[in-house]
Amino acid sequence: MLPSSTAHCRLAPPFPRRLLPSASEPLRRRPLILLRRSSSYPDRRRLLVRAIDAAQPYDLEASLALRHLRSNSLKIAVIGFGNFAQFLAKTFVAHGHDVLAHSMQSDRSSAAAYLGVQYFPDPNDLFEQHPDVVLLSTSILSTPQVLSVLPLHRLRRSTLFVDVLSVKEFPKHLMLKYLPREFDILCTHPMFGPESGKDSWVGLNFMYDKVRLWEEDERIERCEKFLNIFSAEGCRMVEMSCADHDKYAAGSQFITHTVGRVLEKFGLEESPIGTKGYEKLIDLVENTKGDSFELYYGLFLYNKNAMEQLERLDLAFESVKKALFGRLHEIYREQLLEDAGDGIRRTMHRAEQNRRREVAQKLLHNGGQTPPNLSSETKAW
Amino acid sequence: MLPSSTAHCRLAPPFPRRLLPSASEPLRRRPLILLRRSSSYPDRRRLLVRAIDAAQPYDLEASLALRHLRSNSLKIAVIGFGNFAQFLAKTFVAHGHDVLAHSMQSDRSSAAAYLGVQYFPDPNDLFEQHPDVVLLSTSILSTPQVLSVLPLHRLRRSTLFVDVLSVKEFPKHLMLKYLPREFDILCTHPMFGPESGKDSWVGLNFMYDKVRLWEEDERIERCEKFLNIFSAEGCRMVEMSCADHDKYAAGSQFITHTVGRVLEKFGLEESPIGTKGYEKLIDLVENTKGDSFELYYGLFLYNKNAMEQLERLDLAFESVKKALFGRLHEIYREQLLEDAGDGIRRTMHRAEQNRRREVAQKLLHNGGQTPPNLSSETKAW
Repeated sequence: MLPSSTAHCRLAPPFPRRLLPSASEPLRRRPLILLRRSSSYPDRRRLLVRAIDAAQPYDLEASLALRHLRSNSLKIAVIGFGNFAQFLAKTFVAHGHDVLAHSMQSDRSSAAAYLGVQYFPDPNDLFEQHPDVVLLSTSILSTPQVLSVLPLHRLRRSTLFVDVLSVKEFPKHLMLKYLPREFDILCTHPMFGPESGKDSWVGLNFMYDKVRLWEEDERIERCEKFLNIFSAEGCRMVEMSCADHDKYAAGSQFITHTVGRVLEKFGLEESPIGTKGYEKLIDLVENTKGDSFELYYGLFLYNKNAMEQLERLDLAFESVKKALFGRLHEIYREQLLEDAGDGIRRTMHRAEQNRRREVAQKLLHNGGQTPPNLSSETKAW
Repeated sequence: MLPSSTAHCRLAPPFPRRLLPSASEPLRRRPLILLRRSSSYPDRRRLLVRAIDAAQPYDLEASLALRHLRSNSLKIAVIGFGNFAQFLAKTFVAHGHDVLAHSMQSDRSSAAAYLGVQYFPDPNDLFEQHPDVVLLSTSILSTPQVLSVLPLHRLRRSTLFVDVLSVKEFPKHLMLKYLPREFDILCTHPMFGPESGKDSWVGLNFMYDKVRLWEEDERIERCEKFLNIFSAEGCRMVEMSCADHDKYAAGSQFITHTVGRVLEKFGLEESPIGTKGYEKLIDLVENTKGDSFELYYGLFLYNKNAMEQLERLDLAFESVKKALFGRLHEIYREQLLEDAGDGIRRTMHRAEQNRRREVAQKLLHNGGQTPPNLSSETKAW
């Protein structure tokens, strides 16, 4: 039996998953079922079944399921419809939510149509649809400009604003500054992307911070419904303050991007004698090279902890180089000293040779002189 | 049926693997089967079976297998019995070879006993055993000293010297310098270690260079038998010159070690919001941190290509930093210019305001003066 209400169901799948189309399944139009009035028998309806394997209207279970799905679905407006937003939208649609989109920079209508998303070139039209959730998926750098021009007054006063930017303190402050105080604010960061999350989201981290949530059952439920999309997909849900996120992300995500970019610049080549460790480096470059310099620069500029971590990485590199060159210098110095020591030994050896030669000369010639045998001395050295 | 000879079997398993104990299986003593002469019946032998699950002497297949195994086994003397040598020795023993060992620096007799390896504290005793193969598994730095003091004259003139050092040109030249010219020389580098090869060697690279191999069937066969250990374990066999090895390894293995060491110095911490890419970095550190600084330093000092690659990595890091700071500088400069521009616009705006105010004053007061409304101007900014 289906549950009659999910008001108190927190971070649990809003609906049995087997009834939902999978996120990885391509979107298909529902099979067409037409009811036509026959002209000869005006009062009798003739059922024309065009797709016999479809759920029929008299199928009670399917009809209840659909009603339940609709009652749980959110109207989500996505602002900024780039790769990452499209990647998320696919799953939103698969969960039965109505997804609408608008992009400030370029026309994304065909991508939207492919994903079953309604596209609005004008944000006024989009906001007049009164979405439950507005999802900001803009680039970090463009967010202030986008927020300052959105026609926020066209939205209902009860709207949940969510962002999915890779830094968190910055959009939090921007949203607190620009959004009417009646709006709810949820800052989130899915710690994955189209590459790392292409097969499954199971076990991948999803960070969120309920920055401002008015204490009304409906608003609380709406926020949970949105978070449920990620928990139902198997994400590891991490509730954390935006400040803590930025601290951790500078030491992990920003450093990963930096190492990936350095190795991309270095130009790792396929090696016929690569090690497992080397394969990991190549994987890392593959993983980060899809991300734009804009994103990387955003991580650096809009996370106040990034500079400190970059300096630490610099110091670590310097220290490794120092250890190598220091050791080289040590060996070189030892060799110099050894050579100097050899010089002393050589002088002593020569003195001893001379003494012995003098003794031999005396013995051979009864005290007479012989010319010194230079060649034998040269040979000895 | 078992093959009667493997003389022409190149890089193929020397023996059906199912008859060999697995490399990962702990070593066990063979079950003891004793044939005792009975005192009352001097001409009849009584079979005393101490381990009933052992293969019996009348088991023809087992007896043939054992004979075949012995005919194929090599006597391998390992010089330097550290972690890596022990890791290799385990597989040599599992393949039915007789493994003997000596260590110059410390007593490794207990490790040898555990692995079923005969340990010799004196290299003279070891070489008097006339091993078929002498495997050098010394540290790169100590190899010249070790080679110069080994009692090579105790070996048979037909001996195969193999090294498994992580650089190749250096030991090649050392062996050509120190070893009698009757000895065969095989330079190899298994591109894995106790960590990366702990579960299986399947698909892992094994580089080798037949530096000097006298054209005698027995010597050629011996070399193939040794290489067969690795090919039978599933290694990807890569025949390559020592010079090429050093060129490739500087760009892959040395750089992997460098990045691993830099990140170890940096101190990657467990992150509650780690990404998949970050996990790869942590794996990399795990993979390289077991290796000594001696090895890393050896890779640097004794591979002439390493310095160039280190410089390239340095340049790549500098270029990434330059891109970040260059962009920062650009934005800062734009802001400065904008501020300057603002100054100009502000002056123009003020002039326009004044003009309008003057017009308004004239209209309101028919040419009379009113005090300027400063607060409205301040608000406008």
